[in-house]
Amino acid sequence: MEKATEISTLGEFGLIDRLTEGIELRNTSSLKGVGDDCAVLEYKDTEVLVSTDLLVEGVHFDLTYVPLKHLGYKSAVVNFSDIYAMNGRPRQIVVSLAISRRFTVEHMEALYSGIRLACDIYGVDLVGGDTTTSRSGLVISITAIGDAPKEKVVYRDGAKDTDLICVSGDLGSAYMGLQLLEREKVASAGRADFQPEFGGREYLIERQLKPEARRDIIEELDKAGIVPTSMMDVSDGLSSELLHICKASHTGCRVYEDRIPIDYQTALMAEELNMNLVTAAMNGGEDYELLFTVPLHAHEAIKKVPGVRVIGHMTKPSLGCAMVTRDGNEMEIRAQGWNPLASDVQSDSVAGNGDSASAGK
Amino acid sequence: MEKATEISTLGEFGLIDRLTEGIELRNTSSLKGVGDDCAVLEYKDTEVLVSTDLLVEGVHFDLTYVPLKHLGYKSAVVNFSDIYAMNGRPRQIVVSLAISRRFTVEHMEALYSGIRLACDIYGVDLVGGDTTTSRSGLVISITAIGDAPKEKVVYRDGAKDTDLICVSGDLGSAYMGLQLLEREKVASAGRADFQPEFGGREYLIERQLKPEARRDIIEELDKAGIVPTSMMDVSDGLSSELLHICKASHTGCRVYEDRIPIDYQTALMAEELNMNLVTAAMNGGEDYELLFTVPLHAHEAIKKVPGVRVIGHMTKPSLGCAMVTRDGNEMEIRAQGWNPLASDVQSDSVAGNGDSASAGK
Repeated sequence: MEKATEISTLGEFGLIDRLTEGIELRNTSSLKGVGDDCAVLEYKDTEVLVSTDLLVEGVHFDLTYVPLKHLGYKSAVVNFSDIYAMNGRPRQIVVSLAISRRFTVEHMEALYSGIRLACDIYGVDLVGGDTTTSRSGLVISITAIGDAPKEKVVYRDGAKDTDLICVSGDLGSAYMGLQLLEREKVASAGRADFQPEFGGREYLIERQLKPEARRDIIEELDKAGIVPTSMMDVSDGLSSELLHICKASHTGCRVYEDRIPIDYQTALMAEELNMNLVTAAMNGGEDYELLFTVPLHAHEAIKKVPGVRVIGHMTKPSLGCAMVTRDGNEMEIRAQGWNPLASDVQSDSVAGNGDSASAGK
Repeated sequence: MEKATEISTLGEFGLIDRLTEGIELRNTSSLKGVGDDCAVLEYKDTEVLVSTDLLVEGVHFDLTYVPLKHLGYKSAVVNFSDIYAMNGRPRQIVVSLAISRRFTVEHMEALYSGIRLACDIYGVDLVGGDTTTSRSGLVISITAIGDAPKEKVVYRDGAKDTDLICVSGDLGSAYMGLQLLEREKVASAGRADFQPEFGGREYLIERQLKPEARRDIIEELDKAGIVPTSMMDVSDGLSSELLHICKASHTGCRVYEDRIPIDYQTALMAEELNMNLVTAAMNGGEDYELLFTVPLHAHEAIKKVPGVRVIGHMTKPSLGCAMVTRDGNEMEIRAQGWNPLASDVQSDSVAGNGDSASAGK
């Protein structure tokens, strides 16, 4: 039988001691971690980047199919992704949790083991947080802090109207992983003997449950001497992020349907579910790939960066934002990415039953 | 009739635009605020201090008697208090909210007006955040960032066994304010015409609903040339904080009952409620006063700092932590401060009905 220690037996400080035991600071910018009123950091020669995400059970994750360790890993990684999206490196996180009564010390240890694994892999220090109770469900709030030299920070607003639009990895696979998990959840409802059928679909599941932030791309760009003119990570979906960059940079854009990178498994799954593949890739969300622009003269250099594809180019703002389809037509790009406050997910009941436990931010 | 705009009509980005409209950055360390993947800050000559707090409806606050504007103000101020407690100055905050369906745009504007008022008064920039939905209730997660010159940062672990123990302001009044609010809530249940009786008790109510962080004390200490050897803010109660400092500094302590600063209204209220006054002052929590230690030779200097009282002294660790009562006896100090994960508040139902919506961290 699994051990189940009630959190109340440890209390807040006892739980924090247990969860943060053995943490060692590895970054020179981390002077003081857990255990005082504040963490103390030192960033003398670089800019400081700060990003925060709030994840709510029943809205951003569904614990019927998300293991707590994976959830911890993902919660940390999505914050690292925001730091990389500024061309920075994550250095520290602070983690706040609100926990309802059904969670045990062992549950929290599983969650923290995922957070700590992500920190180990990405070289980040866990330097503080807050732990409290909730009336219902689990809430995870993580703030990530990172750095970048001043001249290397990449904003959303620097794209010029002749720049090339690039994206890393592939799109739509995390969304297809979510569809697969939701389908198996419905099929397994009430059946203890149920074995989910993920054979050959492991990539989709992994993209949904254990995404990675594209540190490798940031490092490759650095090696190639390329500083993007604008950049974001793809969390809400390519359409939504493209519009953000175009709005901030005062440009239009053209992306080409046949250039959108899509994995073979994503395509198979879309066919099986009778879903529009391009819609899934453009609007699926949670890819945590990097969307960025580079000057036209960097074309040869960017082609040599592994894992990056040029999908289109910026235009004058008067041309608007459009996708050029395979048959040469232009379709206006609209933000159909996941909107956590839109009316279809705003309903407590819908969010509560997990049907809309879809993409995070 | 009050205007009630459903949040879904704006969506996440529309709501964020509305709430952050007109925000101007005032600190030189704030390079880029709301509107990108990260906030961008610059701290070349100082240490960076980071603190975070998570506040959950029904656990940390009860909206039946806490106005949203006050809640916003307090949520920000308690984070500033953590920065001051390191002898720093708060410079930026990021604010994450999870909102359930019963909240309107106007509700969120009220909450934000309190946050922004606190930022105005304390000179802090709101530089980012995350806004999402929740299944039930309101969750507020704030991370504050501040700075202090390296040689001025004050930790918990620097107290020596001959240092004087000092505290600002008075203790127990916020707790008595909470008792008063809870009593009036019970009395008013179901009665629309009910007029709460707060006459002459405004100070207690204000200490609970609209606490201030002790920036003034930090400035006075600076003017007097005093750098405390250790410091914390009193959020969980004096007993709990004293034990934290003694544990971190490897000391014992003696504090004197007749030196504990208590306001006249606090004393009256304790008598009326038949509560032990010293227990309330030692364990009430949410005072957001500063508890700190100074070297013995600073005695004359500290006596001249307005609003600060010497309440005892550190000792060798073997002597333990005790309060010396008026009759000269010694009572061991135990942490009876509010513990958000202790069994008595861990119960969802108890926390849910507001009975234990007591002190925050």
